[in-house]
Amino acid sequence: MDRPTALDPKVQSRINELIQPIADDLLSGAAELALRAITIFQSVVANQENDLPQVEQKKAALTFAARGMIDAQPAMAPLFHLGNDLLLAIDSATTNEELAERSNAALSKFENTLCASVATIADISYDLIDPGELIFAYSFSSTVVSCLLNARARGRFFRVVCTEARPSMEGRKLASRLAAGGIEVIHTFDNAMGLVLGNCSAAFMGCDCIARAGVINKVGSWMLAVACRELKVPLYALSGTEKFVTDDRMFEFERHERPGVEVWDSAPKGVAMLNQQFDLVPFDLLAGLVTEKGILKEKDIEPYLANFTVHRALKLEPVEVS
Amino acid sequence: MDRPTALDPKVQSRINELIQPIADDLLSGAAELALRAITIFQSVVANQENDLPQVEQKKAALTFAARGMIDAQPAMAPLFHLGNDLLLAIDSATTNEELAERSNAALSKFENTLCASVATIADISYDLIDPGELIFAYSFSSTVVSCLLNARARGRFFRVVCTEARPSMEGRKLASRLAAGGIEVIHTFDNAMGLVLGNCSAAFMGCDCIARAGVINKVGSWMLAVACRELKVPLYALSGTEKFVTDDRMFEFERHERPGVEVWDSAPKGVAMLNQQFDLVPFDLLAGLVTEKGILKEKDIEPYLANFTVHRALKLEPVEVS
Repeated sequence: MDRPTALDPKVQSRINELIQPIADDLLSGAAELALRAITIFQSVVANQENDLPQVEQKKAALTFAARGMIDAQPAMAPLFHLGNDLLLAIDSATTNEELAERSNAALSKFENTLCASVATIADISYDLIDPGELIFAYSFSSTVVSCLLNARARGRFFRVVCTEARPSMEGRKLASRLAAGGIEVIHTFDNAMGLVLGNCSAAFMGCDCIARAGVINKVGSWMLAVACRELKVPLYALSGTEKFVTDDRMFEFERHERPGVEVWDSAPKGVAMLNQQFDLVPFDLLAGLVTEKGILKEKDIEPYLANFTVHRALKLEPVEVS
Repeated sequence: MDRPTALDPKVQSRINELIQPIADDLLSGAAELALRAITIFQSVVANQENDLPQVEQKKAALTFAARGMIDAQPAMAPLFHLGNDLLLAIDSATTNEELAERSNAALSKFENTLCASVATIADISYDLIDPGELIFAYSFSSTVVSCLLNARARGRFFRVVCTEARPSMEGRKLASRLAAGGIEVIHTFDNAMGLVLGNCSAAFMGCDCIARAGVINKVGSWMLAVACRELKVPLYALSGTEKFVTDDRMFEFERHERPGVEVWDSAPKGVAMLNQQFDLVPFDLLAGLVTEKGILKEKDIEPYLANFTVHRALKLEPVEVS
C-alpha cells in the first residue's frame, strides 16, 4: 500500500479537529453524516492555500481527511463512498485549480445524488404506508424521516410508533422530528417492541451499510427483524445504493465499540460493559431494501456490491501471514 | 359479591400507606414482593388492637390490605396467593386470638413454602448451568439470583450476561447482586440481546404470573424468547408454583401501565408515551418452567391452574351486561 505524501502534524491536527464531531455523533444517520462530511471536505479544499502550497500536499490532506472520517464511523458506508469518490476524482489533478475544481464537482455530485435518491425512495415508500395504519420506525435515519414527512405532506394520514434506541436514544430525535412535522407519534422503550409491533402494518429502518450478508444498522435492528418476522410485519430498510460496500469492509462496524460508561456510568466492580453500536440483519429477515433503483431483494444485490472502484489509499490492508 | 364490613377511613389510609412502597417498587421480583407483603400483613394483624376491637373489623382490615396489595401489583401472582391463603385461613375465626393465630400460621406457611421452593428450584437449575459457559439472565428475579448464587457457591464457574430492563433498569440490580456474589457479569442494553445471546448456553428469567396461555414477566421477555428460539438457546422460566393463576386473572397485568414520564420526562408535544411493564411469553417459546415440582412443559400445567380455592372477596367481578 502506498504512503501518502508526509503531512505537517499541524495540518493533521486541524483536520482531526474538524472530524471529531463526526466521531462523537451518535444521533445522526449515515446519509446525514455524509452531508456534514461534504462540508468538512469543502473546508479542507478551501482552507489549505497557506499550509499546502503543492498539489501533492493537498491530495495528502484530503486523503488524510477521507481516512479519518472512515475511521471515525467505520460502519457508515456513505462516508467511505464520499471519500472514495473524492480521491478518485482528484487523483490525476496536476494543478491546484484543477484539484479544487474536481473536488467541488465530486462533492456536489455526491450531494445531489444523495438528495435525488432520498426523493425517489420517498416516492416508492409512500405506497408502503397504508392509510390510517400504524408504522414502526427504528433508531434515527434521515431517509426514513424524509419518507414519512413526505407521505404526510402528500396527505397520507398514519401514526408512527418508535422506540428509544438505547444507549444514545436517537429514537427520541426521530420522535421529535416526526411530531414537529405533524405526525402523531407513540414512543416507548426498545424491549417493548413486542407489545406494539403486532399492531403495525409495516416497519421501517434506515441502514448504515449494505453487503452480501445483509444490512448493518443500529444495534437492535436484528431483534426488530426477528420480531417482525414472528408477527408477520414486513420490515423495509430504506437506503440509497451509496450504502453498498465490498465484503471486506462489511465487518468494519465491529471496530466501533463505544465506552462502557455510556451504558452505565457507575457500574460496580465485577460488571464488565458491552457497548456495541451495530448489528447485522440478514436479507431473509427483510421484506425488501427500498432504494432509488426500486425495492431490491437479496437476488438483486450482486451488481451493486462491486459496482465501484476503490481508491488505493482506501483499500483495507490484508492480514499479513509471516 | 359480598361487601366487607365497613372500615374506618383512618384505618384504610394507614393500610394504604403501608402498601404504597409495594406499588412504587419497580425493581423487585414477585417472590421478593411477597416476602415484604408478609411483613405488612403481620403489622396489620399486630397493630389493629386499638382501631379494630371486633374480629369482623380485623377481617375487613386484612381483606382491604389483601385487595390493596393485589391492586398495587396486579401482575404479581404471589401477592394474590398470599392474600388469598390468609383470607381463607381467617374466614371462620370467631375470636381475635383465633384470628391472630391463624393469620400468623398462614403467613409463616407461605413464607416457608416460598423459601423451600427456591431451594428446590436452585437444585434443579444447577444442572442447567454448563461449566464454563455464559448464561443470559433477564430483568430481576430473586429466584434467578438465588439459583445463580447457589450454583456459584457449589463451585460451578460460569459467567452471566444481563441487560438493563428499561425503563426501571432492574437489570442493574441483578448485575450488582451477582457481582457481589462473585459471579463475573457482562452488562449491556436490551436491544443488544441479539449480539450476546448467540454465545450463551442457556437463558434464565423469573416470572410474575403463570396461566394457561404462558408466563407473564417484565416487558422484553417476549423479545428475549423469540430471539432465543431463533438462536437455539434454551430459555427457562424459574418460578415456584405459587405463580399459577386462573385464566380470568391472567390479563390483570394489563392494568399496570405506569406514567409516561418514566420513559421520557421531556417528550415534545405530539409524542404519546406507552409504558407497559409486562408481556406474555407463550409456553411454546420456553424450554421449560423450572418449579419446585420439577421442570414443567405446557402439557404438565393443567393441574396447577385450578389447584386452589379463591376467597369470595378476591373473585374478579364479571362484566355486567345490562
